[in-house]
Amino acid sequence: MRIIDREQIAQVLDLNAALGEIERAFRLYSAGEVTMPSVGYLGFEDPPGDCHIKAAHVHGEPIFAVKVASGFYRNPARGLPSSNGLVMVFCAETGTPLVLLDDKGLITDVRTALAGVVASSLGHPFGFGTVGIVGAGTQARLQLEYLHRLRGPVQARVWSRSTDELEPYVSELRTKGIDVEARNDLQELCAECDTLITTTPATSPLIESAWVSAGTHITAVGADAEGKQELDPALFGRARGILVDSRNQCVDHAEVCHAVKAGIVEQELLVEIGEALAGQDWQLNPKGDITIADLSGLGASDAMMARLVWDALA
Amino acid sequence: MRIIDREQIAQVLDLNAALGEIERAFRLYSAGEVTMPSVGYLGFEDPPGDCHIKAAHVHGEPIFAVKVASGFYRNPARGLPSSNGLVMVFCAETGTPLVLLDDKGLITDVRTALAGVVASSLGHPFGFGTVGIVGAGTQARLQLEYLHRLRGPVQARVWSRSTDELEPYVSELRTKGIDVEARNDLQELCAECDTLITTTPATSPLIESAWVSAGTHITAVGADAEGKQELDPALFGRARGILVDSRNQCVDHAEVCHAVKAGIVEQELLVEIGEALAGQDWQLNPKGDITIADLSGLGASDAMMARLVWDALA
Repeated sequence: MRIIDREQIAQVLDLNAALGEIERAFRLYSAGEVTMPSVGYLGFEDPPGDCHIKAAHVHGEPIFAVKVASGFYRNPARGLPSSNGLVMVFCAETGTPLVLLDDKGLITDVRTALAGVVASSLGHPFGFGTVGIVGAGTQARLQLEYLHRLRGPVQARVWSRSTDELEPYVSELRTKGIDVEARNDLQELCAECDTLITTTPATSPLIESAWVSAGTHITAVGADAEGKQELDPALFGRARGILVDSRNQCVDHAEVCHAVKAGIVEQELLVEIGEALAGQDWQLNPKGDITIADLSGLGASDAMMARLVWDALA
Repeated sequence: MRIIDREQIAQVLDLNAALGEIERAFRLYSAGEVTMPSVGYLGFEDPPGDCHIKAAHVHGEPIFAVKVASGFYRNPARGLPSSNGLVMVFCAETGTPLVLLDDKGLITDVRTALAGVVASSLGHPFGFGTVGIVGAGTQARLQLEYLHRLRGPVQARVWSRSTDELEPYVSELRTKGIDVEARNDLQELCAECDTLITTTPATSPLIESAWVSAGTHITAVGADAEGKQELDPALFGRARGILVDSRNQCVDHAEVCHAVKAGIVEQELLVEIGEALAGQDWQLNPKGDITIADLSGLGASDAMMARLVWDALA
């Protein structure tokens, strides 16, 4: 069984091709053309951590993929990255293991950022205005970098609870030609921005509804498991349209689940990104004044990324 | 990342130690000491096949395991085994991938046969009488061989729908010192035996209730996914006691699910093997005249086997 490492994967990943495959994964998933069991979740207490198992077969594809991704938040104190992951690729005709993508989370990082580009573009199809990035970690970097590379120059602001992360973030993104400034106050950032992208592991709302102006689009990336939450649920009550990557997954454990449980939003208002890409109307609430896209992470997108790598390297 | 192959694993697997760990896995699972997400299932239509993903962390153990097992029933025509599988082992403190056990299904085969020994021993603690094996594949071999090696000499009969498998089965098991004869009629085999072990991939009942005499214990191994079934559901109506490896899994997709759906058996009568091993009374229906154990396959037992191999080889 062959092992392909992170560096080899990074070399062959073409961002435009990957974006096309991510859009295809959204469409096919929503069209019922993907076999995708529910996410397997293991939680750990001491030290605290979690592990997600996502698997998918996009019908007609020669491979299926099983991804194991973990987050152990005390790892940095041991000199290890907090996130890790690998993707196993199997033949969809025989079940034979084909290759192990020892990507250490790269595929998750890239497909999540690309899903964010798709979601933010649906929210603001004619230009993002000023983009506010909440958080200053890996996703905070990639979401902004990919918007800039794939959709043209953007003007951005960034806020992070960890203020010492702001200066390295700003200088790194500026070397990539991105016009970005740090903000020390999240409310100020919200007031200033037309697109907000939240990328933190917060477990209670960071953004208050009153801080967000009419016309804003929010792409919520951080909350992908029970207990995580970045937005005031009242924001969903103000939504003209709510996009989800997967109705099942988001209602079960992503950002919108809190608003659904609180009775603030009817499940009928949720439209899948794949449905919106296929032309379905998704701004269903004429009284709403903002839009929100909630990302939980699709196994189908892992499978499509794995196939791209497999095609390039096998 | 290190890969350990099937031959290396076979060399270090000590059967008595493994039996102890399987019993421990049953007990700890039933005591709530195992984190085990629901089984991930992917079905394939053309060619037909399936894939199960099982993951578990036994609390306090240094590792957790994720197993991917597949069955593609047209593989033999391509010169490939129908079953395949691998187990990934991760550090439970950091999430770091430790080792890939490229066991090609060996761990599943061994732990399933050991679970059968535990289940059959609970049904007939003072001797198995004549053992009837239904099916003549890998599990049909291992269930009998392990009963013989771990519990002492047994007298056995075997039946298979594929009659050409019987002669190789009988001669192979006889070279292992086991007293076994083939039967061409399943009803005759049932009449003759005190313990029945069913190991087929049947999708409709093979064994009729009228064929089974009072006092018989049945260990049902084959049905581990939706659509599979080996026993007449009426047998469950006759059960003095019903053991399951996992209440959740068995009611969802193993042999007993058909009887539960048909209203033939109350879920309250199901006792987990781990509960029975801990001393709980499980023969709860004094009117019943047979006992049945239903095995769906515990991720916890995969994790314990993986840890044994990891301890021996890492």
